[in-house]
This record gives sequence, C-alpha cells and structure tokens, in this order.
Amino acid sequence: MAEFKYEITQELGVISEGKYNIELNMVSWNDREPKYDIRSWAPDHSRMGKGISLTEEEMERLVELWNTRNEEDSFEE
Amino acid sequence: MAEFKYEITQELGVISEGKYNIELNMVSWNDREPKYDIRSWAPDHSRMGKGISLTEEEMERLVELWNTRNEEDSFEE
Repeated sequence: MAEFKYEITQELGVISEGKYNIELNMVSWNDREPKYDIRSWAPDHSRMGKGISLTEEEMERLVELWNTRNEEDSFEE
Repeated sequence: MAEFKYEITQELGVISEGKYNIELNMVSWNDREPKYDIRSWAPDHSRMGKGISLTEEEMERLVELWNTRNEEDSFEE
C-alpha cells in the first residue's frame, strides 16, 4: 500500500462510539490543506478505518442534501 | 476480498462531481437495513470508491457537530 502521512489538525467530535469510534476531524493528508474527515478510528487513534474526506463546500452540500432529503423534487434542476 | 452485496435503495444527491462523483445515497449492504452512505462512485455507479455508511442518528450527530464546529466548548460534557 502506498505510503502516506496524515495529521489530525482538529478534533471536532465523536459521531458514535464502539470498538472503533466514528469521528469528525480535520485531517491533513500528506501535508496538504486539512479537510473535514468522517472516519472510524481506534479510540486511541492508533489505527484508522474507512472513511471519506470532504472540503468545506462538500460538507455544506452534504448538509443541504440531508436537510432536504424528504422533499419531493418539485422540479428537475 | 470478502464477497459482499449492495443495493443503492435511494439516491439523495451528488455532493461533488469529478472523475468520480461523491454522493449521498441510501445503501443496503448484504440485504441489511439501508444506511446513509457518503461515498465516491464512477458516474455510472459501475465502480465504488471509499466512503462511510452512517445511521440516521449518526447523520444527525454529524450535522450537529458541523453546525457547532466554530463554537468554543464553554464547558466540558
């Protein structure tokens, strides 16, 4: 697997707890600009699980989709 | 890799477009109850990328963390 560097630059909170916790953090990958990162982690952050990194705009769009998820599309965009 | 079945039971929208699109969908894994799924996909859904599945409660918690991300913790829970 390709070598990569990451740094949790800001912990925003635990989404759910378990053997692994699902968390929202700001993570910088390979010294790049930090992105919002939704991912499962070992509680001590020693191991990471699957997840996804999103930009500010992508997070805003995700929240918009969530807030309108029950609305019928009255018109096609 | 372990064999698994999935079905996109509801398409909730595209978060961002690219070679792969990041999307919010409801996905049922191995015939289980569908979960909210934030993931990159080939535009024709022929291939899936990395992502994460969240329950309704986990999505609500994620949105709550997002909405309060700039608030200083006035007190430790």
